[in-house]
Parts: sequence; C-alpha cells; structure tokens
Amino acid sequence: MCPHATGDSLPADKSEMVAIPLNGESSTSTTNGTNGAPAYGVNKQGIKKRGTWRAPDAHLNREVKNPYAARASDLLSNLSNFNIIESTLREGEQFANAFFDTKTKIAIAKALDAFGVEYIELTSPCASEQSRADCEAICKLGLKAKILTHIRCHMDDARVAVETGVDGVDVVIGTSSYLREFSHGKDMAYITKTAIEVIEFVKSKGIEVRFSSEDSFRSDLVDLLSIYQTVDKIGVNRVGIADTVGCANPRQVYDLVRTLRGVVSCDIEVHLHNDTGMAIANAYTALEAGATHIDTSVLGIGERVGITPLGGLVACLYAANPEYVKSKYNLPMLREIENLVAEAVEVNIPFMNPITGYCAFTHKAGIHAKAILNNPSTYEILKPEDFGLTRYVSIGHRLTGWNAVKSRVEQLGLQLTDAEVKDVTAKIKELADVRTQSMDDVDTLLRVYHSGIQSGELAVGQKEALDRLLRRHKAEAQGRAASPSVERSD
Amino acid sequence: MCPHATGDSLPADKSEMVAIPLNGESSTSTTNGTNGAPAYGVNKQGIKKRGTWRAPDAHLNREVKNPYAARASDLLSNLSNFNIIESTLREGEQFANAFFDTKTKIAIAKALDAFGVEYIELTSPCASEQSRADCEAICKLGLKAKILTHIRCHMDDARVAVETGVDGVDVVIGTSSYLREFSHGKDMAYITKTAIEVIEFVKSKGIEVRFSSEDSFRSDLVDLLSIYQTVDKIGVNRVGIADTVGCANPRQVYDLVRTLRGVVSCDIEVHLHNDTGMAIANAYTALEAGATHIDTSVLGIGERVGITPLGGLVACLYAANPEYVKSKYNLPMLREIENLVAEAVEVNIPFMNPITGYCAFTHKAGIHAKAILNNPSTYEILKPEDFGLTRYVSIGHRLTGWNAVKSRVEQLGLQLTDAEVKDVTAKIKELADVRTQSMDDVDTLLRVYHSGIQSGELAVGQKEALDRLLRRHKAEAQGRAASPSVERSD
Repeated sequence: MCPHATGDSLPADKSEMVAIPLNGESSTSTTNGTNGAPAYGVNKQGIKKRGTWRAPDAHLNREVKNPYAARASDLLSNLSNFNIIESTLREGEQFANAFFDTKTKIAIAKALDAFGVEYIELTSPCASEQSRADCEAICKLGLKAKILTHIRCHMDDARVAVETGVDGVDVVIGTSSYLREFSHGKDMAYITKTAIEVIEFVKSKGIEVRFSSEDSFRSDLVDLLSIYQTVDKIGVNRVGIADTVGCANPRQVYDLVRTLRGVVSCDIEVHLHNDTGMAIANAYTALEAGATHIDTSVLGIGERVGITPLGGLVACLYAANPEYVKSKYNLPMLREIENLVAEAVEVNIPFMNPITGYCAFTHKAGIHAKAILNNPSTYEILKPEDFGLTRYVSIGHRLTGWNAVKSRVEQLGLQLTDAEVKDVTAKIKELADVRTQSMDDVDTLLRVYHSGIQSGELAVGQKEALDRLLRRHKAEAQGRAASPSVERSD
Repeated sequence: MCPHATGDSLPADKSEMVAIPLNGESSTSTTNGTNGAPAYGVNKQGIKKRGTWRAPDAHLNREVKNPYAARASDLLSNLSNFNIIESTLREGEQFANAFFDTKTKIAIAKALDAFGVEYIELTSPCASEQSRADCEAICKLGLKAKILTHIRCHMDDARVAVETGVDGVDVVIGTSSYLREFSHGKDMAYITKTAIEVIEFVKSKGIEVRFSSEDSFRSDLVDLLSIYQTVDKIGVNRVGIADTVGCANPRQVYDLVRTLRGVVSCDIEVHLHNDTGMAIANAYTALEAGATHIDTSVLGIGERVGITPLGGLVACLYAANPEYVKSKYNLPMLREIENLVAEAVEVNIPFMNPITGYCAFTHKAGIHAKAILNNPSTYEILKPEDFGLTRYVSIGHRLTGWNAVKSRVEQLGLQLTDAEVKDVTAKIKELADVRTQSMDDVDTLLRVYHSGIQSGELAVGQKEALDRLLRRHKAEAQGRAASPSVERSD
C-alpha cells in the first residue's frame, strides 16, 4: 500500500508509536506539569513581549532574556500584523495537476474562509468563460474573506474584472528585462501609462486595487521604485513584489521590502515562488522588513514547485507569536483544508510538510524521547494540540532509549524498576538491530519480561532466561493459533 | 494508481505535456538560441563575478548591473566555498520510517560519495551492535568522502568511536536551559570540562573532531560563545550550531553565525531542522554569514520533519553560483539518490520538491509558456538539463495560450497561420473549461482543424464548421473501433 494515501498524513502504522498525553489530558508520572509552556513570553492580551521569553521553568515565574527573540530595533516588523492573500484558486490553478470544477472551487473558498484567511484570490475572469462564471459565483457566497481576481495590466481585462462582483483587483505586469523582452515586449513608459489607466479605472468602481511587478528581483531597482512611487501617489491600495522565478533569498527580500517600505505609504504584498525551497523563509523576512500581505496557496501548489505554502507560513508565524496566529486562524482546520486540496489535485501531503507531515510530531532518538517525555517544549516549538494533532514517540527501533520504554511500561500498567527497564531496553535494541519492532512486538516483550520478573524466573542481566521465556511464549502462541477456540469466526 | 509512485518523480501522464528542446538538442524555430543562458555572469574559471549578471541578451555581450546580486560587502560569504556533511545515515536514521540494513547503508554511502559530498556522517557506534559493525564496514569502503560518526559528549562513546576507523568524530551536547534541565541535567562547567576531555582524546588519535551545542538558538549567547572559544583554543576542527527544534529564522541564523565567525578561527558547521520550513534558507544565510559546513540529508529525512534537504540546498546554491556547484557535484545523480532513499524509507518524493518534484520544470499558464518558449531563463533559474531532467509545457487546459499551442502545431509538422492557431486555441480553452484535455485530445483537435483548413471546409471563426468536423471525426473513429482490423490482437 502507498504509505501516504491522501487523507492520512499521520503514521500509517501507529502501532509502533506511543501517543503522549497532551496538555489538559490525563497526565502520567512522566510528565511534569510544564508540558506545553509557550516558547516565548506572551502577556494576557496575547501580545508578544519583545526580548523576553519563558524558560521551561516559567512556572517559577522567572523570565530570562532570549538573545534571539525579535529585537527592539525591528520596528518595521509585521510578524504580528499581517494578512494572507490565499491564491490556491489562482496560482494553485496553475499547478500542472490542477483542474478545479465549480463545486470544488466553492468548497475550497468556503474552507479557506472558515480557516480565516483575509483574502481569497481567483483566476482572471478573462481566462475562460467558466472562470468568469465561477468568479461571480464565489463573490455571491457572502464570505467574510475579501475576494480578489488577478488580471494582466490591460484595460480589456480590467473592464471584465470589475463587473464580477470582486472586492478587489490584483493587476500584474512583468518589469524585468527578461519579461519585457521575451514576454510582453513593452517598455517602462508604456507599463507606467497603462498601470495608471487601469488603477484609476478600478478605483473609480470603488474597489481595492493592487499593482504588482513580475520577476521583481531581476528588475532594475530604479525602474521598480519609480513605478511603485507613481502608483502609490495615485492611490493604489497595495503594491506587490513578485519573485516569479523563485530566485530570491531571504536577505535580498528583506532589503528590497525595506527599501520599498521607505518609498511608498500603501500596503506591500509579496508573492514568492519556491524553486529553491526558500519561499516560506522569504515570506518571513518580508514581514520582518515591513510587508503587510503574503500570498500563499494550500500545500504551495502553483507553477512549477509553487509558492509559499499556507501551512508552512502558519508554522513559522506561529513559532514567532503563537497567540496572535491562534487568534486569527482556525488552526485545527489546516489538515482538513490540505486534504481537500490534495485530493482535488491528486497529490499526497509531502511527508516532510510542516505541521501536517507524516511524522511532524513523531520523536524517535532515545535522547529526544527522554526529553519530550519530561517536557515537550524541549524539542517542539509547535504544540500539536493547537492544530488538533497528537505527538508520538517511536520506541521499537535501535535508537530507542530507556526513558521512552519506561513510559510505555507505565501505560501498560506494568511494575518494573529502572534497572529492569534498562535491561529490557537492551533487548529491544538487540531485536530492532535485525528488524524494526512493531508496538505489538514491544508490548509482548514487555509483558513476558514483566511476568518473568513477577514469577521469579527472570532477573536483570539474565539474557538466556529471557530468551527461554520468549521462546516459550512464542510456542504457546503458536499452539493457540493451531487449535482455535470455538468462538473463531471465518 | 498512486500518482507519485516512488521512482517516478516526473509527471505520470506526460501525454498532456509538450517537451521543450534543451540546449544542444535539435532546436525548432520556436527557440531563439539564448536558451539556458546563465542567470549570473560566470567567468572562465567558474568564479562568480559579484555585482554583475548576464541579461537574457548576454549573447550580445552586454552586461548589466543586477541590484540584487551578492554585494561587495558580503566578504564573509561562503556561498562559493562550502562543504556538505551528508547525514542521511545518522540524522536520517532518526526519521520515523527509517530502518537501514547494512546493504542499504552501503548503497546510500556509495551513491553519496559518487555524487560528491565531502563528508558522510553515521549513527553512533554506541547505538547498537549492528550500528558499530556498519560504521566499520563503511569506513573500509575506501570512499573519497570523509566518514564521520556522531556521538554524545562522553568519554565512553568517544573510546568506541575512535576505534571504528572513522576520519572524524562529531560530538554534541545540549546547551540550552531546556535541554540542560530536561535532558541531561548538566551545568555549563561540567559540559565544558567534558568537552575538553573528549576533544583532546579524539585529537590524540589523529582524527578530526567537531564540537556542537544542541538547541543553540535557545541557549544563552554568552555560554555558547564561551564554550566555542574554549574548544577553538584547544584545537577543535569545527564548532557546530544546531537548530535542534527548528525554531530559527534566517536573520537569526545570520546574526549568530556572523557573531561566532568573529570569535573562533576554526570551521563552522550548521545543523538545521525544518519544523517551520525554513531549513534551506537558514543554511543559505549561514553560508552568507561565514559558515563553512552544512548538514543535509537526502529529502531532508530526520527527526520529525527533518533537516535541510540535500536537493534543496543544491538548488539554492546552484542558483547563486551554477558553475561552482556543477564543478563539485554530479548533479544528474540527485534524482537517483533521492529515489534510492525514498524507496528505503517508503516515502514518496514530495510533489513540490525542489528540482526533482513532480512538476518542477512544468509550465502551465499561457503567459509563462509563451516566455519559456522564447527563452527558458525567463521563468527558470535552474536549468533542467544540468540535472538530467526535461522541461514541459502543459497546454490542454483553460489557462493555455496560443504561443504554447503554436509550438505543438510546429512539432506536429502542421502549417497554420497565427490567426488559425489563435482560433484553435480558443476551442481548446472551451473544451478544457469542461475537463482537462489530454495531449491526444489536443493533437486530434489540431489535426482535424488543420485538415479542415487544407480542404477548405473550415476558416477562422467558423465554430459550427469546426464542431461538425469534430463530430464527423469522432463518428469515423468509432466506426473504426467497431470493425477492428484483422491485425488487432487480443
């Protein structure tokens, strides 16, 4: 079976895992009550206090300085003041596998609205007749999110767009010498003139308008700042920076956004492709530099490898300020939305997806398992319960440690000393050196070990006695299988 | 069928795509000869010239200034001077699904060596008996890559490690208050004393030694710099910074590495977890700040969602300096190595994986397709042919454009005017508004359209005539299917 069937992003075989109790659930003696302390200090209003954080001993009311918290000089930062422009129904439609029918588009729009994104961007109504009809249908849903459509910088497109009922129009044109030469063939004077005409027309209809360059990071800086300043002066609502080819890196993004922040007074949107895997980080640094709006798509779907994924963006912004992100978005819906889109475009949730990936909250190495059992914050900056998920500690492998095994022993209600747990852990490692042990295998071993200790047939270090007990258990189990009880049904 | 079966990271149904000729292959009239010009200026020694880049018109020998190229002030940058420490066989073994037998470990080590990574890191020989035996076996392979093993900062582990035949030992201990309290319970004085003992012991055996903190970004800065300075003075080869919990962001990484660069004279390694999806970007900024060694694993496998993936790191560093990266690594092997590891741990290559993802080189929107056909550099910063891959332009959908369709018309050897291509493109959009058209569907439509024009039964704009021709073609095809030829075999 394909181990990552769509709709199941948790480990396929949970039998090898130990589920660890979460905050508010019944705790065992292995948790210490500081379970899930926030990584950063948050006051009662949910506003992050810059420069301080809560140490794991925050329950003692001591605050220590975190040298790597956001700095006081980060006055530009919008990490706790941003909007998401969700473009699954525009950029996402440019993903090779995507074909959204009307019903699917409406389901995705409703799910994104329920999640809480501030804007939903739709394919240009000029792309096809159905695109126009779907745009109108989604505008009529009465969603809380503002509906945008994305058009070329052209009056023909603008005239169609403003009639669809959208709350805003996103206008785009290529400004790099690449796109000016090989795409539309227009010069900056023409681009500026057309931009002004389109923006003033859209504004005259009383709806929002954004002007974006395309391939901004390979455009001439002076050209860029000049046209942004021009459109800002005539009252554009937002200007957009687009890393159309996915060539930007975080410090470039920071510098360009910071520079632009000093030139325009309107909002700043960024649209970042993920060709080198840096689209999440580029969005993060854009917010640090004063950007106000980030484009995302669910799972990042879009042209080529797509853009900043919604889930990844939420993950890094949650890490920066959990309370703010929790107050804006319905985080437990994330997995459902990802499953909806994954199914629609026939892809699997990537196993290493932030938050919802296969093993995002699975801990394996013994040293990690030990610390997680003491305090999940040691190795987790995201609290799985905030996303409606559960953490797991994997124990049936050769990297296991006795603290993780001890937790399982307690869950099974068995009584073993630490020396005995260490002894049986050595046996798990020995068996797992040959093949990974399932949770059933581990449980059987623990029960056989425990009953041997209870009966006096076994003591710490008696390897041969343990092997003898395991062989006997196996023979008895096979005997039971050979003469099934009358209750067996076929 | 699962659309992303391991071992096939290209689109499952290539019939919907047009393969675009690559550099050096036979070209058609739709390519203009600048196909694949490097995005950055590279001189004959393969050294990137800072601050200049080649515009798409580089064949005209004009160089223009790229305001976002690496800056002259980036004297610390090691973007073109770094080593990869490939940790699939250590960190990767901590991935929940991973169980590598000896044969698999050797296959992975040989593949990584052939790819060209500078170091291969292995699980501690103290983890289990088989781990020790496998470590010794890999050391005996005579690989070009240096072999490292990764141990706790403890003399017991060090004594075992130095006997395995490794070229170096990577030592790690948790320094954050989290890990000091909830993991090992040791204070900084004890950590420093043990570190010195272990480092001097390993050095006395004549092999490399690295000392790393764990959870470095939640450690006290003064503690960190103090212990790094101490171990640097006693001659450690490398110090390591580890974002064990995946909480760091690019500017934090830049700041910490830059600060450390001023404190120690030894090499600096970074190990970055990917919980918020920023591990690639964090590695990139670490190199900008003067780090020398980056830890990776194939597909990023490791604890939870893993670490910086080898392929993603290669993608962003290739974008920064293609010639340097091509000179170091056997890039066309990347896909093979990813398939090898994906199969071993039973995961699929994520559809949005940099370089090898499902559609990393697939272009869909009409505006993109047009520019790609004119010059691939317009929308591609990675040249697929450098990775042994091919680009595709998808055309059977409602976002298609007439330039992409024209390319297919020429590939089929049909003669149509631009007006005729635009006319048939409108028909493709109309049909694709109902369902995505396969390449077979598109080809059939193009052939019927072409023969209608040739016979005079059709002219531009005659929608009803085209529908009639299509119905007649369909009826004829069904007639052929109903009376199969004698050659048909069952």
